[in-house]
Amino acid sequence: MLTVNVELKERRYPIYIGENLLKDPSVYPLKSGDKVMIVSNETIAPLYLDTVTKTLENIGCKVSNVLLPDGEKYKTLQSLDLIFTALLKENHGRDTTLIALGGGVIGDVAGYAAASYQRGIKFIQIPTTLLAQVDSSVGGKTAVNHPLGKNMIGAFYQPITVIVDTLTLNSLPKREVNAGLAEVIKYGAILDLAFFHWLEQHIDNLVALQQADLQYCISRCCQIKADVVARDETEKGDRALLNLGHTFGHAIETHLGYGNWLHGEAVAVGMMMAAALSEQLGNISKADVGRLEKLLARANLPTISPDTMQPEDYLPHMMRDKKVLAGKLRLVLLKTLGQAYVTTDMDKSLVLSAISACTQTD
Amino acid sequence: MLTVNVELKERRYPIYIGENLLKDPSVYPLKSGDKVMIVSNETIAPLYLDTVTKTLENIGCKVSNVLLPDGEKYKTLQSLDLIFTALLKENHGRDTTLIALGGGVIGDVAGYAAASYQRGIKFIQIPTTLLAQVDSSVGGKTAVNHPLGKNMIGAFYQPITVIVDTLTLNSLPKREVNAGLAEVIKYGAILDLAFFHWLEQHIDNLVALQQADLQYCISRCCQIKADVVARDETEKGDRALLNLGHTFGHAIETHLGYGNWLHGEAVAVGMMMAAALSEQLGNISKADVGRLEKLLARANLPTISPDTMQPEDYLPHMMRDKKVLAGKLRLVLLKTLGQAYVTTDMDKSLVLSAISACTQTD
Repeated sequence: MLTVNVELKERRYPIYIGENLLKDPSVYPLKSGDKVMIVSNETIAPLYLDTVTKTLENIGCKVSNVLLPDGEKYKTLQSLDLIFTALLKENHGRDTTLIALGGGVIGDVAGYAAASYQRGIKFIQIPTTLLAQVDSSVGGKTAVNHPLGKNMIGAFYQPITVIVDTLTLNSLPKREVNAGLAEVIKYGAILDLAFFHWLEQHIDNLVALQQADLQYCISRCCQIKADVVARDETEKGDRALLNLGHTFGHAIETHLGYGNWLHGEAVAVGMMMAAALSEQLGNISKADVGRLEKLLARANLPTISPDTMQPEDYLPHMMRDKKVLAGKLRLVLLKTLGQAYVTTDMDKSLVLSAISACTQTD
Repeated sequence: MLTVNVELKERRYPIYIGENLLKDPSVYPLKSGDKVMIVSNETIAPLYLDTVTKTLENIGCKVSNVLLPDGEKYKTLQSLDLIFTALLKENHGRDTTLIALGGGVIGDVAGYAAASYQRGIKFIQIPTTLLAQVDSSVGGKTAVNHPLGKNMIGAFYQPITVIVDTLTLNSLPKREVNAGLAEVIKYGAILDLAFFHWLEQHIDNLVALQQADLQYCISRCCQIKADVVARDETEKGDRALLNLGHTFGHAIETHLGYGNWLHGEAVAVGMMMAAALSEQLGNISKADVGRLEKLLARANLPTISPDTMQPEDYLPHMMRDKKVLAGKLRLVLLKTLGQAYVTTDMDKSLVLSAISACTQTD
């Protein structure tokens, strides 16, 4: 088992990474008599809910659960309300613990529910998708979507422990494994050229879910993100670098309707757009853009805009991005491969041109 | 103008108290070019929205507003969503400021919206009811109700400034002025016997809205609450004392349906129940209970349970209180008049007997 510690101002919490951790009572920070509510969804619950419930009941916890429908389109205030209702119906007090068992959507909704229920209860993440394991379960960003924008409503709220059982990836659809690899590649691109190299050598093993490489990869990603979050918990500075490709990607997700493209797929194309813009600005070479494109393609990820979307469809969505300040578009771009930065007032015609460079022309 | 500073771990913020402050640009921590969204309701907006809007426009702010229906029953996730929609439709970014113009409901909903929109934006409170001026606008508790419990969903989130224009009380229905006085009396009862004496001497002036006494009274209440909050921002200890009468009172509000009794009216009866229980335990004398009852009555507040509610109706609601820990009922009681404490595991039959003592028998 590997452990990554996330160091925050007021406290630290561990991320445990290994096989069969769902069944390991020692990784749960719970004791006999503790009340627990597991939040999961209809897809994940049949696979893992019994295992987690039994492990916790053996510890002596009182365990109940609430299941949400599966999918990004249920990342809403309505799903949040389902969790609150379940907690209230069973008289859960301020001393209860909420556990998110599932992917990024479950983690984000349950995390925001934990932040909000009685103004804050304890929270444990058990991410079961690669995306959630390397990204959304680290750093305390929780949120739900609004019809007018993704992740617009939420809180910064940290879990007390994150438990990553890498065997859960065996039940994950391949398309979602690949989508998770988009975020993995992002870490290399923005902050760690050596890791980018490592990925170029091991991407096929990761696609094939080779356990040792997977566990190293996940721990490396968690460490990179944990370091960034420790420096900048509430995203006033460095943390924004983690959003490489996300402003473009969110535009794709919003335009197509949540859930039609996977988040990682949208981010893959978004990173290509950010790379194209970085190349236009003279930061990186055409060869660097090619390396990124090739790595994404080997992970079976898209690298061009959805064919139902025109370049001019992007900007209205992008202007609602949380990084927009005083009406000015700020984007994460690449200074070099392995080093990202945030721009302050990006020219919109350049942005349009970079989007066009990643759009199929008939 | 009086100023009370609330000292928090990471920063301080001022509460300004005086006449005609709505029109005073110097009390608003805003500058030319700032974007502002005012949240108000249908009752308050016709009275004060223009005044505040003009003052801010003179500073050079871009001002928009969103109006909620008036009343506790609109303190819901749905109202929250109205605010998010308004913010998103007008492309408000993370650098915008939300202003709550209204009573406790507006302050609580807008405060929670500010805490949640893009995971937190700046927030200014302009409370226009006595209750909000002495209580809900100080201390950073924000929340909405759930059909199964009051204030169950929310956040601890502090404003950057609170602006109390005491002339707004002239337009407040007398019944609401009185309800606010319940919380005023509470401060004396729990923490400040000298202030309790002062209230016994000046309660008639307060009921009559005599400005100088009002301003002193509000500043004294804000100072008491600010001191408590500074010691205990997230209610792990002392802050719970502020809830004298509230566990009983919330049961009344939930049972009758939100908004039928005013919060202060329910708290007045709740304080009588807490006092009756304190007397049963031998803490305070019958004469002390009588002083509290007389002061509440002079403020035209109820002192006995609603006649549609039986003593046994209380406990199921009370067991969902946020102070319940591990299934044990914790209540704020009086050690002496002017000194409250939190009990750890209150016997339910004693609680029932105290409720009965404040119930009309035919």
